[in-house]
Parts: sequence; C-alpha cells; structure tokens
Amino acid sequence: MTTTTDGTSPRVTVIGLGDMGSAIARTFTERGYRTTVWNRTASKSAPLVDVGATAAATAAEAVAASPLVMVCLLDGTAVEQVLASVDTAVMGKVLVNLTSGSPAQARANERWASERGAEYIDGKLMGDPPDIGTPQVLIPLSGSRGALDVHEPILRELGGIVYRGEDAGFAAVEFMAQVAMGYEMLIGFLHVLKLVQAEGVDVAAFGERLAGSVAAYPPLLTSMAKAVATGEYPPDLGPLRVQAALMDDLITHREAVGVESARMREVKELMDRRLADGHGEQGFSGLFELLAPRAHG
Amino acid sequence: MTTTTDGTSPRVTVIGLGDMGSAIARTFTERGYRTTVWNRTASKSAPLVDVGATAAATAAEAVAASPLVMVCLLDGTAVEQVLASVDTAVMGKVLVNLTSGSPAQARANERWASERGAEYIDGKLMGDPPDIGTPQVLIPLSGSRGALDVHEPILRELGGIVYRGEDAGFAAVEFMAQVAMGYEMLIGFLHVLKLVQAEGVDVAAFGERLAGSVAAYPPLLTSMAKAVATGEYPPDLGPLRVQAALMDDLITHREAVGVESARMREVKELMDRRLADGHGEQGFSGLFELLAPRAHG
Ligand SMILES: NC(=O)c1ccc[n+]([C@@H]2O[C@H](COP(=O)([O-])OP(=O)(O)OC[C@H]3O[C@@H](n4cnc5c(N)ncnc54)[C@H](OP(=O)(O)O)[C@@H]3O)[C@@H](O)[C@H]2O)c1
Ligand SMILES: NC(=O)c1ccc[n+]([C@@H]2O[C@H](COP(=O)([O-])OP(=O)(O)OC[C@H]3O[C@@H](n4cnc5c(N)ncnc54)[C@H](OP(=O)(O)O)[C@@H]3O)[C@@H](O)[C@H]2O)c1
Repeated sequence: MTTTTDGTSPRVTVIGLGDMGSAIARTFTERGYRTTVWNRTASKSAPLVDVGATAAATAAEAVAASPLVMVCLLDGTAVEQVLASVDTAVMGKVLVNLTSGSPAQARANERWASERGAEYIDGKLMGDPPDIGTPQVLIPLSGSRGALDVHEPILRELGGIVYRGEDAGFAAVEFMAQVAMGYEMLIGFLHVLKLVQAEGVDVAAFGERLAGSVAAYPPLLTSMAKAVATGEYPPDLGPLRVQAALMDDLITHREAVGVESARMREVKELMDRRLADGHGEQGFSGLFELLAPRAHG
Repeated sequence: MTTTTDGTSPRVTVIGLGDMGSAIARTFTERGYRTTVWNRTASKSAPLVDVGATAAATAAEAVAASPLVMVCLLDGTAVEQVLASVDTAVMGKVLVNLTSGSPAQARANERWASERGAEYIDGKLMGDPPDIGTPQVLIPLSGSRGALDVHEPILRELGGIVYRGEDAGFAAVEFMAQVAMGYEMLIGFLHVLKLVQAEGVDVAAFGERLAGSVAAYPPLLTSMAKAVATGEYPPDLGPLRVQAALMDDLITHREAVGVESARMREVKELMDRRLADGHGEQGFSGLFELLAPRAHG
C-alpha cells in the first residue's frame, strides 16, 4: 500500500457490494486502505465492517468520504440509478466504474462525470471474484490519463491493469469483444457436445480432447488478425475452395441429428460468396471482407 | 518402414493427388514404400513418379496394385464417384478413406466396402499438407480393428493416429465436431474484429491480445463438458443471472456499430429461459439443457 502525503493510509470508496464489489472492498480493507462502502441492500456491508470498513448511509455520503470512488454494480442501469442519487456530490472526485457494460455507456458516464466536475476512468473486470487482488484478474482501463497517473498504485491492488487510451469506451470495447468471442466459442462448444452425445460418443472424454485442441488456435488467430489488418488473405486452414466442400456435409450432418446449424449456414453462405468472387485460393480470414459494416464501399 | 514377410517393402496405393493426397503419396514413396498412385487429372502424378511412385491408368488398376488403398479426395461426392469406378476390384483389400466427410458417409462407405468383400477404415486429417508425415497431423481413425492391427505401422507414417472405435463414423464425429467448433470460434473472431475496427481500435494488436486470451479456455471447456456429462452446472463465468444482465448491453453495442448479433441473441434467449426456470445461480453450461435434440423428454 502507498500512503498519502500526511503519512496516513489513502481513502477509497466502494459502491456496490455484490460478489465483485465485496471482493474489491475486502481487498482494500485488508490491505490497510481506509475503505468506505455502500450497497443498496445495506446488510451486505456487515462482513466488510467486520474487517474494518466504514459503511455509509447513502451513496452520496460514500462518495463524499474519499477522493477515489469505485463503482461495481450489476449493469449500466444500476450505475445510472445510483449515479443519479449521487449527482453533484461527485464534484472533484475520481470516479472509477468497474461495472460491465458497453463503450457507449462508458462514454455517457464520462460526460456525466465531466458535467459535474469529476474525472472518469472506466474499467472492466476480466476474472472471477475470488481472484480479485491477484494478477489472475485482467483489468483494461480507459479514460482520464491524469487521474490514472495519480491513482494507479491503488488500482494496481485489484489485478493486472492495462491502460487502453483516453477514449473512455476503449476498455469496454476490449471487454465486449472478449466476452462476445468467448460466448461464440462456448455456445459452439455446447452445440458440438450435443452433436457428439447424439452420435453416442462419451461427452466428458470428448470435451477434454476438444478443450486441448483449443490451445492450438492462438497462432492462427494472430495470423488471421494480421490478414484482416493488411487485407491479404493466405490459405489459412487450406484454400476456401476445399473448406467450402466440407460445409455442406457438416450442415447435413448436424441437421440429421437435430443440432442447430444456423452459424454453419452463415459461414457456408459467406464462403460461397467469396468463391463466386474468385477468392477460392484464399483462406477463411477473407470472409472478413463480407461482414457488415462494410470497410470498402 | 516395416518390411513384408518376403523382405520386400510394403505396397500402398494412394488415390487422389491434391495437396493432401500428394503429400501422403510423397511421404510413402520417399520412405521406401512401393507406392502406386492415381488421380483424375493424370498430370498430377508426374512429380510423384519422379520420386519413385508408379502411376496407374485407372482407379481400379491402382486398387489392384496394393493390399492397402488410401483415398484422399475433395469430398464425399468425389469418393462416391471414384469408388463406383473401382467397384469389385476392391475385394480383399483394406480401404482407408482419408477424405473429410460426415459420420453417415463413413458408415455408407463401410457398407459399400463390406458388400464387396473389403475392410474399411475411416480416417480424418487434422493438420496441414506440409505437416503430413509428422506428429503435427492428428488422424482419428475408426472402423475395422482387425485391418488396423495389420496396417497400423504404415498408417503411423502419416501422423499421430488415434483409434476411436469400431463404429466407422466415430473419426468423422470427432472431425466434424472439431471443425464446427473451430468455425464457430473463427467466425466469432472475425465479427469481433469488425466490432473493434468500427470502434477505432487497432485490429492487429487487438487480435494478438485476443488470441492470447484463448489459451485460458481449455480448463473452462473441460469443466463445462464435465458439467454437461453430470447435469450439475456450477456458476462457470459467474451466475447466469449476472451474465444475462450483460447480454442486452452486448447486443445493443453490436447493433449500434452494425455488427451481426444473431448468435448473441440466441445466447440471451437461452439465458432468459434458464432464468425463467429458476436456474439463475447456475452457470453457462446449463444452457446445454435447452439445446435440441432434447436429452430429457
Ligand atoms: N461475478 C463474476 O464472476 C463477474 C466476473 C466479471 C465481471 N463481473 C461484473 O461485475 C459486476 C458486478 O457483478 P457481481 O458478481 O458483483 O453481481 P452481484 O453479486 O449480482 O451484485 C450486483 C450488485 O449490483 C447492485 N444493484 C443491482 N441493481 C441495482 C440498482 N438498480 N440500484 C443499486 N444497486 C443495484 C446489487 O445491490 P443489491 O445487493 O442491493 O442487490 C449488488 O450490489 C457486473 O457488472 C458483472 O458483470 C462479474
Ligand atoms: N488442404 C488442407 O489444408 C486440408 C486440411 C485437412 C483436411 N483436408 C482434406 O483433405 C482432402 C483433400 O484435400 P486437398 O487439399 O488435397 O484438396 P485438393 O488439393 O483440392 O484436391 C482435391 C482432390 O480431389 C480430386 N477430385 C475432386 N473431385 C473429384 C471427382 N469428382 N472425381 C475424382 N477426383 C476428384 C481432385 O482431382 P483433380 O486433380 O482431378 O481435380 C484432387 O485429387 C479434403 O477432404 C480436405 O477436406 C485438407
């Protein structure tokens, strides 16, 4: 822990004491910060008061208690409601919002803070509550660079922080992209488990094998991102012409056992369009050219 | 290389000399097997004849030349056409089909072979043509155990073979599942690159970070497969209740920048149904219960 100029420990406020907010408040309290907490359901502050935190009666009071105010609520709507109750009490503070949400919400929060004379940092928590306070949690941050310079050591207590830029929305861009990609993979995984179960294959053993195969993807993803950035599409996974030949079999197979195939149909349709455009020797990454919003024209 | 009982090198036939078939035939020829090749477009056999292979005039002639016949063509349709021209010449042979395709096709091929007095092994090539002959290529095999026992050392020349069972379709089940899962992830990745590009984030740098994050998924996938196998769904990725709160923001965000969100809508709809059924404290893996074909009633 750092100390303030007068030698006392820094003050920090944590608003929202769900699984995440409680883990955050506990980390600060246990590491010696003078921690003020507030939660809509007041009873959740008791275990934190037990370890040394101070419970505020209202969110505005909690904000008044510290120069650095962290907010970790369920979603954007909850943040909006709590901030409305705080209103001008935020003046002169640094507001760090660690609630999951979109870039647009982050940018709106920044405007709200700025209109009330506060600085704003948006952060997204990528990890599990029990890992708060360890490098297992990755925390992209964006927004006020000046505020971050002042409070970086305190934020570093929570996990591996990385600054993504002055645009307050950038941490959310990264977070939303990771979450979406994760869900695409995970829902695909569940459909595939349905498929192998329907075929009479042992699901747990198969799942473990499939899980192992995922480790091979990072180099492919990196090279696909490079292909997209440069617009040159080498035959990753073989030429599209050969890949496309597989897709009909794949779709027929899924439908024969009653497993959803909408995503595979989308892929096949994009492949067919690339083939029709004469790009059959290029790879999968070239499908990027067909995705909305259009980069060219 | 193994030798035959009379001390000469074994004979093997390779039908189909595209990128994959050529790599296979080249591996056998260079490792001293007496290799016979055939390809619809005859000119593709020339580089293999140069290194010592024998070109047959017809597919039936190629089949007659060796006890072990490998087929590696574009797709199931190509296999059907070539096998029709071979017909009863296959009697007494072991047919190994390394063409990508579905479990149903593999099972149909096995019936076809069996009706003509041949044994059948289905195999799927998971890797790139230049890696044929190295452990980089994983080759699930299924079908005749007896035929595999006899020819295993020869098949082992091509890559890391793993036997998945007597059901000829099992190698294809594994292959199709891996391919589908891969495509779900990759198309999700491309959409996400579109998203970050639309938000003004550097695509190549972001792609590399996202690629790195994929390495964290194998333990999650393994535990999700276990959850599915047991029907007990712990709060992986946090409780579904908290995850669901994110999804509307995620969908709104994607649609605001014009990125496709059908898959995220599917996920949200499944989450809502789980919440309505009172499973909000369980994790993502519980969505499995809602996927067709229904496991329970
Ligand atoms: N849990 C995880 O594994 C995980 C992982 C990564 C990121 N996150 C993110 O961390 C954030 C917090 O998650 P969590 O797990 O702590 O959720 P949680 O345990 O459900 O806690 C939600 C918190 O939001 C408060 N809240 C909800 N609606 C409110 C409203 N309208 N007004 C005031 N307060 C409201 C709740 O107050 P009450 O106690 O009064 O209900 C509670 O403090 C979320 O954005 C989540 O996406 C969570
Ligand atoms: N390339 C990869 O990266 C890769 C990776 C894993 C798996 N695979 C699988 O390996 C198999 C072969 O792929 P490849 O890359 O070798 O494809 P390829 O280079 O396009 O070769 C296709 C082969 O199929 C033959 N063929 C196509 N239609 C035919 C028909 N109707 N009758 C007779 N022959 C026909 C072609 O003969 P012609 O020369 O006369 O056209 C050629 O020999 C595919 O199932 C593919 O999915 C490929």
